[in-house]
Amino acid sequence: MTPAAPTPAYRRLSVEERRSQLLDAALGLFAHRAPEDVSLDDVAEAAGVSRPLVYRYFPGGKQQLYEAALRSAAEELELCFDEPREGPLLPRLSRALDRYLAFVDQHDTGFSALLQGGSVVETSRTTAIVDGVRRAAAVHILRHLGVTDPGPRLRMTVRMWITAVEAASLIWLDEDKQPPLDELRDWLVDQFVAVLSVTAARDPQTASVVAALA
Amino acid sequence: MTPAAPTPAYRRLSVEERRSQLLDAALGLFAHRAPEDVSLDDVAEAAGVSRPLVYRYFPGGKQQLYEAALRSAAEELELCFDEPREGPLLPRLSRALDRYLAFVDQHDTGFSALLQGGSVVETSRTTAIVDGVRRAAAVHILRHLGVTDPGPRLRMTVRMWITAVEAASLIWLDEDKQPPLDELRDWLVDQFVAVLSVTAARDPQTASVVAALA
Repeated sequence: MTPAAPTPAYRRLSVEERRSQLLDAALGLFAHRAPEDVSLDDVAEAAGVSRPLVYRYFPGGKQQLYEAALRSAAEELELCFDEPREGPLLPRLSRALDRYLAFVDQHDTGFSALLQGGSVVETSRTTAIVDGVRRAAAVHILRHLGVTDPGPRLRMTVRMWITAVEAASLIWLDEDKQPPLDELRDWLVDQFVAVLSVTAARDPQTASVVAALA
Repeated sequence: MTPAAPTPAYRRLSVEERRSQLLDAALGLFAHRAPEDVSLDDVAEAAGVSRPLVYRYFPGGKQQLYEAALRSAAEELELCFDEPREGPLLPRLSRALDRYLAFVDQHDTGFSALLQGGSVVETSRTTAIVDGVRRAAAVHILRHLGVTDPGPRLRMTVRMWITAVEAASLIWLDEDKQPPLDELRDWLVDQFVAVLSVTAARDPQTASVVAALA
């Protein structure tokens, strides 16, 4: 299908545009299939390019492409938590969760494959990318709570809740996306308040955070 | 150090005894070092046997030995949750958590290395073993709650709490085992009651479980 000579309609993509086109195609495939079910041929086909071109941009093959796609997904995911710091706190958390859960919904199979572990493409680098997202989420939440120097109990509570949200997302995907997203989101927000309140009984810093939430 | 001829003091171990001796030595090493820092030589030395003997029992080398040690640790861990079904519920949960946290304390480095992912010995088989422990814990808890046919909301709540406990264990190891174990245990029990209560407001089955707890 390659024309013998360039035609006027054919626009040459810049290196960055091409890279981003290949990443988009890869992310689309990795979102809905387990990584072992995605081949470089599939990526080339989805992007409408040749396999050698994919290799030129990602000489490390599928592993490199997967990690690049994961990094781009991680950036997108971190943006979910980037909510303006104005207005009441719990609606901010609800909006962030809405974006996060929409992401989970749109990347269902890839999200499960990545987080359930034991995947063929899992390495210490992919684990570090996922951990980076968790850490970024904790930083965002603590900033919204107005805490600059969180003590160990408050930090632990926030990190435990983030892990529980992750577990809930995986179970939700496993259970055919039940309950509906808005119900799940409200449930998770209520759990956040509940676990913070438990910690508040043991930790003055968390107690003032909970007082500010009310 | 091998005697030229068997001496009367030398007792020949049965295959099962030898295997279990090697596993114990391996588990002791994997508990306190990252898997990449344990060699078959170390295992042979710790068990006081030759390296070829270790290979005879575990021809798959370190990966096979690691998985066998993990399976034996998983069995031990599942026993932690095997609490008699008598007396008030929350003290039962406290006792199970005490045993679980003591296990985490005694296997600190190996526990972190395994659960933080990206480890060199992580495979779909090791992931399945860890998942088996999580599932066993959920089954035990639901049985203690007297629920034979848990609905999705109650199941999700219990599984989320189990994941949060796991996260708490990792953070606790990371934070030089602070707070003290009994404080951490009470905190986790209170969180369990709190998240169940949040679910109770949305789910009649969970509401009756919470009523029975009170």
